[in-house]
Amino acid sequence: MNKRLILRLIGRLLLMEAALMVPSLIVSLIYGQGDWLAFVETMGITGVCGALLAFLVKPERKDLNPKDGLAVAGLSWIILSFFGCLPFWLSGKIPTLTDAYFETVSGFTTTGASILTNIEGMPRGLLFWRSFTHWIGGMGVLVLTVALLPRLSGRTAQLTKAESPGPVFSKLLPRTSDTAKMLYLLYFLLSFTLFVALLIAGMNVYDALIHTFSTAGTGGFSSYNNSVGAFGSPAIEWIIGVFMMLFGVNFTMYFYLLRKEVKPVLKNEELRVYLGIVLTATLCITFTVLPQFPNFHDAIRASFFQTASIISTTGFITADFDVWPIIAKTIIICLMVIGGCAGSTGGGFKVSRVIMLVKDAIRDIKVAIHPRKVAVVRMDGKPVQENVIISVGGFLFLYVMLELCGALLLSLDHIGMGEAFTAALTCISNVGPGMGAVGPTQNFSLLSPFSKWICSFLMLAGRLEFIPILSLFSIGLWRKKG
Amino acid sequence: MNKRLILRLIGRLLLMEAALMVPSLIVSLIYGQGDWLAFVETMGITGVCGALLAFLVKPERKDLNPKDGLAVAGLSWIILSFFGCLPFWLSGKIPTLTDAYFETVSGFTTTGASILTNIEGMPRGLLFWRSFTHWIGGMGVLVLTVALLPRLSGRTAQLTKAESPGPVFSKLLPRTSDTAKMLYLLYFLLSFTLFVALLIAGMNVYDALIHTFSTAGTGGFSSYNNSVGAFGSPAIEWIIGVFMMLFGVNFTMYFYLLRKEVKPVLKNEELRVYLGIVLTATLCITFTVLPQFPNFHDAIRASFFQTASIISTTGFITADFDVWPIIAKTIIICLMVIGGCAGSTGGGFKVSRVIMLVKDAIRDIKVAIHPRKVAVVRMDGKPVQENVIISVGGFLFLYVMLELCGALLLSLDHIGMGEAFTAALTCISNVGPGMGAVGPTQNFSLLSPFSKWICSFLMLAGRLEFIPILSLFSIGLWRKKG
Repeated sequence: MNKRLILRLIGRLLLMEAALMVPSLIVSLIYGQGDWLAFVETMGITGVCGALLAFLVKPERKDLNPKDGLAVAGLSWIILSFFGCLPFWLSGKIPTLTDAYFETVSGFTTTGASILTNIEGMPRGLLFWRSFTHWIGGMGVLVLTVALLPRLSGRTAQLTKAESPGPVFSKLLPRTSDTAKMLYLLYFLLSFTLFVALLIAGMNVYDALIHTFSTAGTGGFSSYNNSVGAFGSPAIEWIIGVFMMLFGVNFTMYFYLLRKEVKPVLKNEELRVYLGIVLTATLCITFTVLPQFPNFHDAIRASFFQTASIISTTGFITADFDVWPIIAKTIIICLMVIGGCAGSTGGGFKVSRVIMLVKDAIRDIKVAIHPRKVAVVRMDGKPVQENVIISVGGFLFLYVMLELCGALLLSLDHIGMGEAFTAALTCISNVGPGMGAVGPTQNFSLLSPFSKWICSFLMLAGRLEFIPILSLFSIGLWRKKG
Repeated sequence: MNKRLILRLIGRLLLMEAALMVPSLIVSLIYGQGDWLAFVETMGITGVCGALLAFLVKPERKDLNPKDGLAVAGLSWIILSFFGCLPFWLSGKIPTLTDAYFETVSGFTTTGASILTNIEGMPRGLLFWRSFTHWIGGMGVLVLTVALLPRLSGRTAQLTKAESPGPVFSKLLPRTSDTAKMLYLLYFLLSFTLFVALLIAGMNVYDALIHTFSTAGTGGFSSYNNSVGAFGSPAIEWIIGVFMMLFGVNFTMYFYLLRKEVKPVLKNEELRVYLGIVLTATLCITFTVLPQFPNFHDAIRASFFQTASIISTTGFITADFDVWPIIAKTIIICLMVIGGCAGSTGGGFKVSRVIMLVKDAIRDIKVAIHPRKVAVVRMDGKPVQENVIISVGGFLFLYVMLELCGALLLSLDHIGMGEAFTAALTCISNVGPGMGAVGPTQNFSLLSPFSKWICSFLMLAGRLEFIPILSLFSIGLWRKKG
């Protein structure tokens, strides 16, 4: 392990984080609600710590091993969340460090689970930072670093790979830094389109920015207690609904569209299945919740909004789905598990992994019927390597194990069993709301500090798809050699 | 597909089933509660159908392809359950075919979920048959056929493999029929020991037989509404508790012990982990439920009994764990998922599969740290083949998918979300009780007919570990060629 190089990289990340707080500082100065001081203090602390690490630590070697990349990925998210939570804590608006850390982890991991009970009472600068962490975390802090900073080393792919969700990392362009720049360009273009659409639909600039950040990162923090439901505007609900769905799509699709290649987009299996699930779930939910709505329009809008919100793992709310019929709630649980597409800003198990395992199961049945048959799993016409299938199976196991262990530890708290299981699930999949006491109209404030740390761990583990966080517990990672 | 040979084999199985009803007929004659007629009628129908198929259908070829073995395994359990449910239905004691079929599937698959609301009101012959199906299903009907009947063909391993739970089928002896005989010998010896122990503990012969069958098969049907709790005897609870645990152990261990080989038993990883889980869960549950019991003895006895009952997937009850603290209930849910050891009569995911996936996950982390390292997963010192790991991952996926789809379909019923999820889980893992309205003191009678058919399907799929049942939906299986 190249400890000095890792420290230096984290130093640079901290410098970048301090710079990323500038917009929030400006917002806090505009609204003058006294939270600007907390930003200045945090930027000072973060900047000094970052500068000390970035300029004083001299690495012996400049090469980044795979294990160094893994350590940077795991550690940087933990450390950035710590410095990122300081504005909440130093301003006294979130009095305990546990709560401030939970809220920031929930922000960066684009979960959107909150401990705030009165969102409207928060200074606007802090709310801006809270949603901005979604936007940064959505595409990834390391992807941003690779895109912005001069080349760190020859092995930057190690960094972006750890942060990009999905079974395989698709390089859009030969150079990793170019891929990172392209991803952020697409991200920015889509976000800007959404921002303009929200302005046209009647939002003010501040709310439009907040909801653009949270939608683009598939996070779910709103500036209102009633989330997107607070606007009471069908137009806004449709716009955000559609964009949540779009941000749950693999960004490679937008790259193709930018190059005017429509065919690979139309033929993409993951996209087809993803849209198929959205359509089916929307219709099924509409059908079951129809009696609870005054008319069909309202029912289908609420159903589509919640479907897009949950499968993209955003977690915005326009209707309290906790009072919907059991079948609608069970569909929502299934959507929480599935999650968005690989290479999107969404979390969860990912549609492409589901497809691979369905195909693998069909192959298992085929092989049981014809043992001598050689069957290969194919995605988009190309054969999938066996080690990818093993790793997807391993991913499923870690997902199930963390869900069960998480629910077990949360059961120590004074909550119901449904709450424990859905709280763990919503954190691992980075969705936001669970059911019952952690449901859509509730929040995570009632949990014990211990439970909040467990949830923070689950959110980080889920966002980085387990390995970078779990590898921090391996002695092998910390050994100097290799 | 060799349809004629398959029909002939099923014919033989039906003849065997008719013969297996003789003890129940005798019991019904002894107690004279009028249920003997239903047995005579069923034996007549089953015998005639069996004889027609076994003697009139002449197969063209005598060889059993793998796909034929798969078809026999899947079909025979469905068909045997149908003929097995006739005594309940013809006697009018279970008036609907849906309920009678559910109860019999629950019996053969050793689940133990019941639709009976007044067990003590049932004729004793029927209750005897109900528990006897556990004993037959525990070790497997096809294993029994291979053990008892003259050699059916050269490929009997295809039949026993489909029925034996676990990731790999371990042959105790070179010939499959000898392995089957040995398994039934061990099964009989252990059952007999339990029977004698129960007699000594004060049970009458009838109850001792019923509870021996249900414990040995890890089923859970009792002759009392209050299950094993009805005896109010600590001795009986400890005996059944220990034997439930023992029947959840891989029978290969008893084969070693019979040959006085102690070393491989002591060194067996699955056994160690299994016993470790039982010990840990018992202590954790005892600790949490202590305030609900008058003294430590009662608390640890109830905790051990429920731990052994759930992990072995028996489902006997001495305490209403639905009113236990959330953490105890969550531990019970985890035990339901894990299940017994491979090659035992228990259901669930199986301890050895958990171990393999934990080791695979550790390997994933190791490989992420050192990508060039070649790491092999080992069990009991021997390397596990990669295709076994893929199939275990595939098994986990089918398990999760059936759990989610099952819960989804059960959500259409008028039950809660916790009920839908735990009912699906308890059926797939062949445990018996779920939580809430399908909990330990309740039963499955309130479910709609549709839900009961879903549960029956899940029980069959879980008992045969998915592939034999799911392959029945594959067109490839029904094709004549290959």
